[in-house]
Amino acid sequence: MIVVMKVGSSQDEVSRVANRIKASGLKAHISKGVEHTVIGVLGQVFPELRDILELLPGVDQVIPVSKPYKLASREFHPLDTIIEVNGVAIGGNEIVIMAGPCAVESEEQLMSTARAVKAAGATVLRGGAFKPRTSPYQFRGLGENGLKILSQAGKETQMPIITEVMAPDHVDLVAKYADILQIGARNMQNFILLDEVGKIKKPVLLKRGLSSNIQEWLLAAEYVMSQGNEQIILCERGIRTFETYTRNTMDLSAIPIIEKVSHLPIIADPSHATGKWYLVTPLALAAVAAGADGLLIEVHPNPDLALADGPQSLNFDNFRLLMSQLSPIAQTKNRKLVTPSM
Amino acid sequence: MIVVMKVGSSQDEVSRVANRIKASGLKAHISKGVEHTVIGVLGQVFPELRDILELLPGVDQVIPVSKPYKLASREFHPLDTIIEVNGVAIGGNEIVIMAGPCAVESEEQLMSTARAVKAAGATVLRGGAFKPRTSPYQFRGLGENGLKILSQAGKETQMPIITEVMAPDHVDLVAKYADILQIGARNMQNFILLDEVGKIKKPVLLKRGLSSNIQEWLLAAEYVMSQGNEQIILCERGIRTFETYTRNTMDLSAIPIIEKVSHLPIIADPSHATGKWYLVTPLALAAVAAGADGLLIEVHPNPDLALADGPQSLNFDNFRLLMSQLSPIAQTKNRKLVTPSM
Amino acid sequence: MIVVMKVGSSQDEVSRVANRIKASGLKAHISKGVEHTVIGVLGQVFPELRDILELLPGVDQVIPVSKPYKLASREFHPLDTIIEVNGVAIGGNEIVIMAGPCAVESEEQLMSTARAVKAAGATVLRGGAFKPRTSPYQFRGLGENGLKILSQAGKETQMPIITEVMAPDHVDLVAKYADILQIGARNMQNFILLDEVGKIKKPVLLKRGLSSNIQEWLLAAEYVMSQGNEQIILCERGIRTFETYTRNTMDLSAIPIIEKVSHLPIIADPSHATGKWYLVTPLALAAVAAGADGLLIEVHPNPDLALADGPQSLNFDNFRLLMSQLSPIAQTKNRKLVTPSM
Amino acid sequence: MIVVMKVGSSQDEVSRVANRIKASGLKAHISKGVEHTVIGVLGQVFPELRDILELLPGVDQVIPVSKPYKLASREFHPLDTIIEVNGVAIGGNEIVIMAGPCAVESEEQLMSTARAVKAAGATVLRGGAFKPRTSPYQFRGLGENGLKILSQAGKETQMPIITEVMAPDHVDLVAKYADILQIGARNMQNFILLDEVGKIKKPVLLKRGLSSNIQEWLLAAEYVMSQGNEQIILCERGIRTFETYTRNTMDLSAIPIIEKVSHLPIIADPSHATGKWYLVTPLALAAVAAGADGLLIEVHPNPDLALADGPQSLNFDNFRLLMSQLSPIAQTKNRKLVTPSM
Repeated sequence: MIVVMKVGSSQDEVSRVANRIKASGLKAHISKGVEHTVIGVLGQVFPELRDILELLPGVDQVIPVSKPYKLASREFHPLDTIIEVNGVAIGGNEIVIMAGPCAVESEEQLMSTARAVKAAGATVLRGGAFKPRTSPYQFRGLGENGLKILSQAGKETQMPIITEVMAPDHVDLVAKYADILQIGARNMQNFILLDEVGKIKKPVLLKRGLSSNIQEWLLAAEYVMSQGNEQIILCERGIRTFETYTRNTMDLSAIPIIEKVSHLPIIADPSHATGKWYLVTPLALAAVAAGADGLLIEVHPNPDLALADGPQSLNFDNFRLLMSQLSPIAQTKNRKLVTPSM
Repeated sequence: MIVVMKVGSSQDEVSRVANRIKASGLKAHISKGVEHTVIGVLGQVFPELRDILELLPGVDQVIPVSKPYKLASREFHPLDTIIEVNGVAIGGNEIVIMAGPCAVESEEQLMSTARAVKAAGATVLRGGAFKPRTSPYQFRGLGENGLKILSQAGKETQMPIITEVMAPDHVDLVAKYADILQIGARNMQNFILLDEVGKIKKPVLLKRGLSSNIQEWLLAAEYVMSQGNEQIILCERGIRTFETYTRNTMDLSAIPIIEKVSHLPIIADPSHATGKWYLVTPLALAAVAAGADGLLIEVHPNPDLALADGPQSLNFDNFRLLMSQLSPIAQTKNRKLVTPSM
Repeated sequence: MIVVMKVGSSQDEVSRVANRIKASGLKAHISKGVEHTVIGVLGQVFPELRDILELLPGVDQVIPVSKPYKLASREFHPLDTIIEVNGVAIGGNEIVIMAGPCAVESEEQLMSTARAVKAAGATVLRGGAFKPRTSPYQFRGLGENGLKILSQAGKETQMPIITEVMAPDHVDLVAKYADILQIGARNMQNFILLDEVGKIKKPVLLKRGLSSNIQEWLLAAEYVMSQGNEQIILCERGIRTFETYTRNTMDLSAIPIIEKVSHLPIIADPSHATGKWYLVTPLALAAVAAGADGLLIEVHPNPDLALADGPQSLNFDNFRLLMSQLSPIAQTKNRKLVTPSM
Repeated sequence: MIVVMKVGSSQDEVSRVANRIKASGLKAHISKGVEHTVIGVLGQVFPELRDILELLPGVDQVIPVSKPYKLASREFHPLDTIIEVNGVAIGGNEIVIMAGPCAVESEEQLMSTARAVKAAGATVLRGGAFKPRTSPYQFRGLGENGLKILSQAGKETQMPIITEVMAPDHVDLVAKYADILQIGARNMQNFILLDEVGKIKKPVLLKRGLSSNIQEWLLAAEYVMSQGNEQIILCERGIRTFETYTRNTMDLSAIPIIEKVSHLPIIADPSHATGKWYLVTPLALAAVAAGADGLLIEVHPNPDLALADGPQSLNFDNFRLLMSQLSPIAQTKNRKLVTPSM
């Protein structure tokens, strides 16, 4: 941590800062520049110190030098984390495709989708049983019944399943059925929920918050990891900007950045990022070209009858088309997709 | 709801849209313009219809005409809502000042603050017992113990208390002690939490989400109201933008907008909006000049020793100074502050 | 254009709106819904009408139906525009790579870069002679001398050259040397400059403004086109968001969107979008995977000695590496790169 | 400037950075922390050095300590700058109201507006002769004829006039008529235009760019000042955010921030910030409460017939109402308005 004093700060002000640092059991290293005096803080800094020093008279700014996350950082964990779920490895050489409907609506809808996405090369089945909806008047999911249908479909098609958990006291219920628990974008800073999924032993897919920067996202991962669960999959799904043509703006630069600063796997969700089905395929291809370890794709047998997110869902034909275009892109990155079963 | 067809859409495409509308029990009203054919949808529209129509071939865009919120809308509820809490009226002629520390740290810290803010004219006591923190390594509040200290201080100084609730299964506990429950910005779209506070009988202060527009904010209020609790106080606390000098960008235009489109009271929180104590007073004055019904202000006996949010807290002297400047501004709006007790 | 009246608007208010529409030589088509009366405006609407109607009593909102741009729109010009410059076709089957240094610094620097990028497969040479810089104390380019060096290098390596024009009265000078004129992001709404480049006969590369949405970008193209110059190449180079890790946030969804709504070619500039050289290659691959017609890439013989934008420039080795990874991606899109000359 | 090395950077890497600093004629001050080695750069740093050092191996980040602007900074110029124009002092004790129509449309329209705003207490007359418009199909101003009408109205009502200049080669023409030259938001980083207005002897009102942060805004002021013209008035007029209810989001915190970091006067333009006339008055009051030195307000005799910006213009009655509410707010800040002449 570095304290920059104001131009013209007094000797007394500098001493007061130095003494406050020493009183915290740390060392202060004073260096006078042409305009500014700068004080280096040496030792194991605690987060609140920044706030404390910034308030002292004569202080211009306090600059943290160390990153506030450790467990999620590649600096302290250089090797890639690979997460294994029922034989599927996320973050390894294979590009993992998670596909399925936004919401589980019925056994029939889910089973037909599960078979179609499996046949086209998906290896994880997605589907929502508890749905966050902007308006209270929209369809909010089938709840535990949805989880049962999902679990059954996962078994029949031999795919691990991923589904969203929205409340701390649902974690045990959802974990009973799901292989991967998803934390949605609106819950990325629901800290009590993060604590709870940190206590279970199943992988967690952590979506980036709509207005969260990369550091906050990694700090949210740190919340889960600091409770003991280090199986985190990050998922870029678009951030909120002034552009209104798309629902959100997909930040594909986040993919190589995460790869650089963290050891955790990173996947992309072009369905939620764009909100329009005809943008899903180009953005999915782009995400894999940028280095994504996988994709989360909404697929529905009949998008114009879907109870949720129809406009951003691919139908079976469009999903197959996406998969056929994806395979050569994966090869250019020296990665591969699972060979489709049909 | 209005459906705009693409330039050159066929008669068949128009008929298909019209039929889909009729199949939903609504009327379709077709009108051909110079470039576009436009179809009006008459009758009580359900939210999913937009998504459904947007997917049909030949459709350019679907434009909702009615606002998606009703209970929160002034259109259906022209008179101002005034919320009474232990003799304090929020949304009436008096400007209500809610003040206190970010986090309850100790009985002594809270009692001294409660007495100081009461003496200066505050009428509601704020303080956090459960604290949402960006990093898992920061102080996270005293929990139920904090609630007890808060409740005690409220009684002694005869002020209703407001405190944050972060999880659905904490609602009963927090409601046992608090007079007003606060939903923080990061939880504005924690829909299960919104449902839960909708089931209690105490007022809810709903902060605007960091990346939420005004419509989404009112839809979050609608969540709570649709469960039966119509005592909602809205609170503007800054939105996320590219500007990094302040923690967030306070959107003061939200105050007159809410006044126009909703009957709910609206207050402002300049402490969280700016993150810097020396900006709190100018923005507090501005908020009242713009028409705010009240303010939420962080005050701490010794901000440079605070365990949370020190840099944005006023000390007692600065809070008194703010109150003395606020009073004439309130008068220019034909409103008043409580006469300070000393 | 559609006028939505407020709930409870009077018959008089509706008539007044209808009369104002008729007074403008247009037809008004009134339709009463359950909550709102809606008035369709039929005929050739002029842009100011929206503002006029919105002010009338009883009006809730006015919704434009037609897009405000025509010349740039695919609706009125379904076929792709292909722009030919000295044998290079932009917007056709070939992916066009424009490469070179941010700023022309010397003959030697430019010639060595020109030869290197040509050898690796670039077909257009870029270089800045007039440089927009955030601070007045930074290097601002060699001016006309830079143009001469650039022109010479273009001739020797047989590549058309692209360079930025910053002021209306520089247009003739820059057009004397350059084959393609570039309008920078900060000048996207410098309307007098747009008028001027609209009067020349050379292609214009129009970068998207940092805070411009897609409609404003196409309206800026419309400015140039309405003056008679229809040879516009659009260039996505990142928009401003709250994320500070990258200089801007590259909006790759803009690429398939432009492809859908406009006939103009669209290329991507990952160097300016990210501001960091190690992100250039992944984002360049992603842009081509998303459907870009070309790339604009900063290359410098020795980035750590560059007078401008060193941190985002590729050196020759990294540029060759990019080109070798790009070629198979282009093939997956059924497109190709020029065969490198060595 | 401070260079932070990566965790685990080698002794060689540290030396290479230190040598590069010394080769630039500066001193390097190495200090080893628990995790990071930090190198202080002592001496007069040039802007490009940051970019250069950031590229060296082993460097994690380079942190500038000094602000990049000097002439605009309060650090080097502690006293407020007061700008005198024909007897009106901007930045002094009096709140200066600049009012008039968005665009000059006719002698009659301007004269009636000039008389009305003067009578209500305005002291500067605004009006546009060259209008930046998003679409090429909108009214773009009367040009020099508009300037003549404006100049005439200024003389008759004894008010200095302010009008926008849009192109470098219009500066002399506009300066011939105008008392204050306005640089619009879209031109805040039109650097050649900034250079040109830096060479004249008349005050310049510099609007904040839609996507410009406070530092970039002050650097734009620095451009003008570095050419010799130090008479700059800053003007906050809203920034671009995700909120679409208002045209822009007015950032009122910019007012006390500018007051703190710069000596230049700062005024507010609520008309452009909000785009809706009924928000102008509350935001104008808020701006003065926050400490603004003045306001720029659009007033039109008949807003629903205005050729530009009708929806955000006040009519004469509403302007008088604003002025009557403004006066007591000014008094609470120990400031005053001019006594209206009627």
